[in-house]
Amino acid sequence: MSNIVEKKQSEFSRAEPFRVAVIGSGNWGTTVAKIIAENTNERPEEFVRDVNMWVYEEDIEGRKLTDIINEEHENVKYLPGVKLPKNLHATPDLLAVASPADILVFNVPHQFLSRILQQLKGKIKPTARAISCLKGLNVEKNSCQLLSTQIENELNIHCGVLSGANLAPEIARECWSETTIAYVKPKDYRGKYDDVTPFTIKHLFHRPAYFHVQVIEDIAGASLGGALKNVIALAVGFVDGLNWGDNAKGAIIRLGLREMIHFGHTYFPGAKSYTLTCESAGAADLITSCAGGRNFKVGREIAATGKPAEQVEAELLNGQSAQGIITAAEVYEFLSSKGDLNSYPLLITVYLILKGERSAECIPEYFNKTEDVKHWED
Amino acid sequence: MSNIVEKKQSEFSRAEPFRVAVIGSGNWGTTVAKIIAENTNERPEEFVRDVNMWVYEEDIEGRKLTDIINEEHENVKYLPGVKLPKNLHATPDLLAVASPADILVFNVPHQFLSRILQQLKGKIKPTARAISCLKGLNVEKNSCQLLSTQIENELNIHCGVLSGANLAPEIARECWSETTIAYVKPKDYRGKYDDVTPFTIKHLFHRPAYFHVQVIEDIAGASLGGALKNVIALAVGFVDGLNWGDNAKGAIIRLGLREMIHFGHTYFPGAKSYTLTCESAGAADLITSCAGGRNFKVGREIAATGKPAEQVEAELLNGQSAQGIITAAEVYEFLSSKGDLNSYPLLITVYLILKGERSAECIPEYFNKTEDVKHWED
Repeated sequence: MSNIVEKKQSEFSRAEPFRVAVIGSGNWGTTVAKIIAENTNERPEEFVRDVNMWVYEEDIEGRKLTDIINEEHENVKYLPGVKLPKNLHATPDLLAVASPADILVFNVPHQFLSRILQQLKGKIKPTARAISCLKGLNVEKNSCQLLSTQIENELNIHCGVLSGANLAPEIARECWSETTIAYVKPKDYRGKYDDVTPFTIKHLFHRPAYFHVQVIEDIAGASLGGALKNVIALAVGFVDGLNWGDNAKGAIIRLGLREMIHFGHTYFPGAKSYTLTCESAGAADLITSCAGGRNFKVGREIAATGKPAEQVEAELLNGQSAQGIITAAEVYEFLSSKGDLNSYPLLITVYLILKGERSAECIPEYFNKTEDVKHWED
Repeated sequence: MSNIVEKKQSEFSRAEPFRVAVIGSGNWGTTVAKIIAENTNERPEEFVRDVNMWVYEEDIEGRKLTDIINEEHENVKYLPGVKLPKNLHATPDLLAVASPADILVFNVPHQFLSRILQQLKGKIKPTARAISCLKGLNVEKNSCQLLSTQIENELNIHCGVLSGANLAPEIARECWSETTIAYVKPKDYRGKYDDVTPFTIKHLFHRPAYFHVQVIEDIAGASLGGALKNVIALAVGFVDGLNWGDNAKGAIIRLGLREMIHFGHTYFPGAKSYTLTCESAGAADLITSCAGGRNFKVGREIAATGKPAEQVEAELLNGQSAQGIITAAEVYEFLSSKGDLNSYPLLITVYLILKGERSAECIPEYFNKTEDVKHWED
């Protein structure tokens, strides 16, 4: 080993390596846990090698899912066919996973977050840091909160955000992709030998061969794309269901991007346009989601068959929900409370189509109003 | 007819309505001519109803292409199956079309532009205005010129640009799409009763049911997307040919968008990021082109088969060329002359892959260098 490498490693060594816990084990949770365990295995000076992953226990043909994961190193339920590192351990005990951890990586469905945070309150290290891999917003009638802010407020710990063009099955197969992690310096930062730094983040999540991590500081920008893209993916599904072709899909995506940026500027003044256009968490995630994800498929079926959204969701998703349908309603309610519906013709039209109050065919009507010609002085 | 409509129409009436000519009759040229003739037919107070389109004469099974277009109102060679307005007239005589025109709409392949401009020099109205629908850049070793600038310089007339997410066959079938037209106030502007205004542009190109026009002033921004997107579409084709999935495609598009914006800021200081991210001529056109156009297909075949670019082009395109291959070489030569290759890892990597000097598999290597982690002060 060369001197340069030794020096580089020692810079990140510490007396007590960070213990990392992953909260959640769906296909994305398991994929992220795989990445993390691969990295902790390669950097024992920086991280405790063993990574614990909290698994909501299920019975799989008479065996416990946690036993299967720990014995066969495969999440046969949510990520079948992908071998997991042997230093990744599944456990059904949330507090056993979370309490000793220095770094908590949250990766559960949005709707379970509040309950989990209630269970963790007062039971984790006060010095712990967190990364949220959740997509969504915590919308109530008059307020719109980032999920990382909810984690910070409930647990009183500092929290960053991971978001990007990240279809889990592709990353699990180690196809090249990128992500964005937004993490700012905590107010009570303890210095680079005792605290999580951007280097810690990069070392924990970056895989040179297949998962490229860009660390930025724009938490709101990185979060908004992941939340709003699902609504736009529904709209792209609508025009695909109507067979309008690739021009119309490109048009919907650019209109969506414009409304995302405007939403960020208006309600999260720190959010940067650059994050939404030029980072993985922005346009790249939007484009990837509009190429064929769950929300896209639901939108396509609604427009092609004329069936109500609830029926399509029930038929296509086997009891799961299309996040975009929930987000569209939340965003509508929020913008309505702010008296700001007119600035978001695409987001609002998607909601009205889902409610059955508009047909997908009338999407174009909503756009020419906002983009009229300016007069020149003679 | 209501009073409001009458008033609106009279505002744009003039003693001498504008005569419009279309130079070029490929699938895009014919599609744009169809749009224009539909609009001139509805606005006789503003435009001469009859529109002439210059057609490069060809023999189709013993009949002249111009005769077929004029008798059957269909361009059977380049836009078969689409009925054209009866007030659109095909003629093989370039000067007969261009000389009397007040508005010249250029829509020919890039490589024919110089020769056509030579023929038109001194033979057109000095008061004429032009719109370029061409995609590309006029690159020479040390300079990089917009094609609209080339038209302006050679003919000494004012020229705007039309560019957007515009796959011609979809628009010809009247599927909803959008476009961007960049047009600035000419130095010798003659006032709204005697000259082309943004309203003239909108009235000439906008079709409420299927072709939505946004008029802006950023000529460089609107032009650059259309030129550089083809290089990026090749790269998206590469990763598709390698079966890397939708995450990788999203990543390539966002890296491409970033390099487009940087290229604009560096070499066309007036170009706005907003045009490239939020107008149809920017991200929308890029996304649409990367969903399956000619350059995408060539890139995919190169990566999937390992065949040289020339061979794939010959096999797939039947003698035509993939514009991205030409543009990649031009951009490489230009950036090399400026000593600025390192700022454009994607554009440069595409060129090196096309030359056989890199393999498509090594695309990811070029990106992590430029995006490293920043240190925090303790």
